[in-house]
Amino acid sequence: MPITANDPKRKTWLETAPDTDFPIQNIPFGVFLTRDDIITIGTRIGDYAIDLGALHQLGYFKGIELTDDIFLQDTLNDFISDGRKTWRLVRNRIAEIFDKENSELRENKDHRKHILFTLDEVEMQLPVQVGDYTDFYSSKEHATNVGTMFRGEDNALMPNWLHIPVGYHGRSSSIIPSGINARRPWGQTMPDGASEPVFGPSKLVDFELEMAFITTDANALGEPIPVNEAEEYIFGLVLFNDWSARDIQKWEYVPLGPFLAKNFASSISPWIVTLDALQPFKVEGPKPIMEQLPYLQSKGKKSYDINLEVYIEPENGEESKVSTSNFKYMYWNMAQQLAHHTVNGCNVNSGDMMGSGTISGPTPDSYGSMLELTWRGANPIKLSDGSERKFINDNDTVILKGFCKNENVRLGFGECRTKLLPANKM
Amino acid sequence: MPITANDPKRKTWLETAPDTDFPIQNIPFGVFLTRDDIITIGTRIGDYAIDLGALHQLGYFKGIELTDDIFLQDTLNDFISDGRKTWRLVRNRIAEIFDKENSELRENKDHRKHILFTLDEVEMQLPVQVGDYTDFYSSKEHATNVGTMFRGEDNALMPNWLHIPVGYHGRSSSIIPSGINARRPWGQTMPDGASEPVFGPSKLVDFELEMAFITTDANALGEPIPVNEAEEYIFGLVLFNDWSARDIQKWEYVPLGPFLAKNFASSISPWIVTLDALQPFKVEGPKPIMEQLPYLQSKGKKSYDINLEVYIEPENGEESKVSTSNFKYMYWNMAQQLAHHTVNGCNVNSGDMMGSGTISGPTPDSYGSMLELTWRGANPIKLSDGSERKFINDNDTVILKGFCKNENVRLGFGECRTKLLPANKM
Repeated sequence: MPITANDPKRKTWLETAPDTDFPIQNIPFGVFLTRDDIITIGTRIGDYAIDLGALHQLGYFKGIELTDDIFLQDTLNDFISDGRKTWRLVRNRIAEIFDKENSELRENKDHRKHILFTLDEVEMQLPVQVGDYTDFYSSKEHATNVGTMFRGEDNALMPNWLHIPVGYHGRSSSIIPSGINARRPWGQTMPDGASEPVFGPSKLVDFELEMAFITTDANALGEPIPVNEAEEYIFGLVLFNDWSARDIQKWEYVPLGPFLAKNFASSISPWIVTLDALQPFKVEGPKPIMEQLPYLQSKGKKSYDINLEVYIEPENGEESKVSTSNFKYMYWNMAQQLAHHTVNGCNVNSGDMMGSGTISGPTPDSYGSMLELTWRGANPIKLSDGSERKFINDNDTVILKGFCKNENVRLGFGECRTKLLPANKM
Repeated sequence: MPITANDPKRKTWLETAPDTDFPIQNIPFGVFLTRDDIITIGTRIGDYAIDLGALHQLGYFKGIELTDDIFLQDTLNDFISDGRKTWRLVRNRIAEIFDKENSELRENKDHRKHILFTLDEVEMQLPVQVGDYTDFYSSKEHATNVGTMFRGEDNALMPNWLHIPVGYHGRSSSIIPSGINARRPWGQTMPDGASEPVFGPSKLVDFELEMAFITTDANALGEPIPVNEAEEYIFGLVLFNDWSARDIQKWEYVPLGPFLAKNFASSISPWIVTLDALQPFKVEGPKPIMEQLPYLQSKGKKSYDINLEVYIEPENGEESKVSTSNFKYMYWNMAQQLAHHTVNGCNVNSGDMMGSGTISGPTPDSYGSMLELTWRGANPIKLSDGSERKFINDNDTVILKGFCKNENVRLGFGECRTKLLPANKM
């Protein structure tokens, strides 16, 4: 089925700014609370939030096989379970409804009143209930930077890194949508030179610039997903900030991996941009440095050219850009990650989320964490207000942005915005 | 509120074997499918499964604040959310209903027909939808054994081990109830002496003898749970087999921890034995070897004397006991684990599951994995049929059992039974 929703020539009758992340070619999916305190599944065009529950009730999805309440839910999990064919039908239909040439809804004031909201009338929620969240570690630049800092240049990459899209399980419960605050965590650390651990608020809170993909029900327990089918099971992507407390991490992570250093909060952007919408931005990924085992060999364009930016906004200050990266730098792509994740039969469900790992590019201004940008604090970053940052200060807001652009269209993810509150008093 | 359900003098009008794991003093909670294909929440006394949905509909819980459909669900999550006071009221009432002196249900044939099932009439399900599953690593004997094998006796325990109840996130989706088969996983391994990894079925599939506790909604994001309140948020425990592929684990786990080596399957016993029922079996835990930070200092009896056994049953063979351990050997107790898990503000929800880590005792016959019992395969175990095992063979069934016993009462967990099927053909 063609993805007509991607037609770059299509224009909408809704007013949209020329540089919006949400042109009619995007049509992402999210969940919001309306001015009437009703929770619904919606999409966004320009600065309008569109209530898909209301659209469906008013008959605009006639002819598409959908249960009556599919959009009247507080998560997208069931809709995502319906599978790629349904996602496409719905997205194509939405594009038709809002097409400049289509008067059906445009001329129906009463319907529009029920369907259209301005952004300040809605409150974005988590788009899915994340059953399991996995985080990968798939940027070679990031793994090399961290490895160089901790083990020296010659042993930077672990022996398994070029053979395995290394990943580990994360915590679902503390995933929060953009706009919800995080809090500086307390924890145990072993200060340099100390002989006993100490307990206190983390001194080295960091962001990690990542993207995460959301899956549909992919496989039964025991059945792997082949690498060249893997993209069929990916619904879409969000921006992802994998908050990290570096001092807690350093003391706790051997031998079983990061735990409390990560699970105090992870933030995502609220609109899931579908993999379908991203098709025009597929590119070749980095060439494998070593031959990969056949189950990981991925053919064709499986990387995505998504510009990524990180900003820090001090309290009552202006935002300063601190990093400019791109999702295409990932050494291991999503298809390889999902194939690896399931090669042992591990089952993947609708609403599961898989993070890319920190996305660092080749140049120092493209690194995806303060750890790398300031090289463990050795080279602080100057913000536009003149203040310096080694890591993230109390009441700083960290903002991730992401967008794709070619000669025909620009579309993006909006923001993933999280303020870091001071630690609790104890 | 007193836990009258624990009264050791109470007898039931149901027929029960003297050595049953499920006397009227147990009253665990589970979920089962009935002969009429109805899913319901239930309990078990002797070899009877008791439909709590039917009991409630027939008015036996009058006076206890419960929603009408609280037991007509396919998971215990909502009931567990109701909190400890409700769990106690319900458990106490069940004990009354089945008390020998109470004729109310005993003499009502019609009601009994709707409420009582024999075990072969029901099919046990997962008792909870596990939102997040965490696995700890809290047996000093296990950590020491594994450390000795891989790093030598002098560096056996990692520097952080005596300071932190080390834990990591696991995979919820592949948690299966007793009776469901696991499958030998495929995966990447680096054979000894090889220079390139190979891909194939794991050659070293192992069990890990663990217990896991199930929590209720414990805290909001950002709010820690103090160690001395932690038990309030624990609903109950199950037996837990954390299946592990040692060869996959060895190659993948540095630096982010075990991943595909673990997430192909984890098995649990289907009846959650409440922490209330286990109160008579509280004991002091091992004395701390080093002073612990105040947030981890646990007062009083917070360990539980639960006898644990592991059996291997070859296809068409008899079961042979291969390990005899005890939950009381754990160095870090559940209260410490939960306090640590939340000290950074990580939020814990109803139905979350936390595994103990492999429970090894002080003697070689009390080790909780084949890795330790056979010392990496150096000392194979002989089964009663004369065959030997270094690790688990195809079509072997691994059975965990657990029970508590004092002068007054014996109660237990039944079995956690999982057959290991051969790897898929590829």
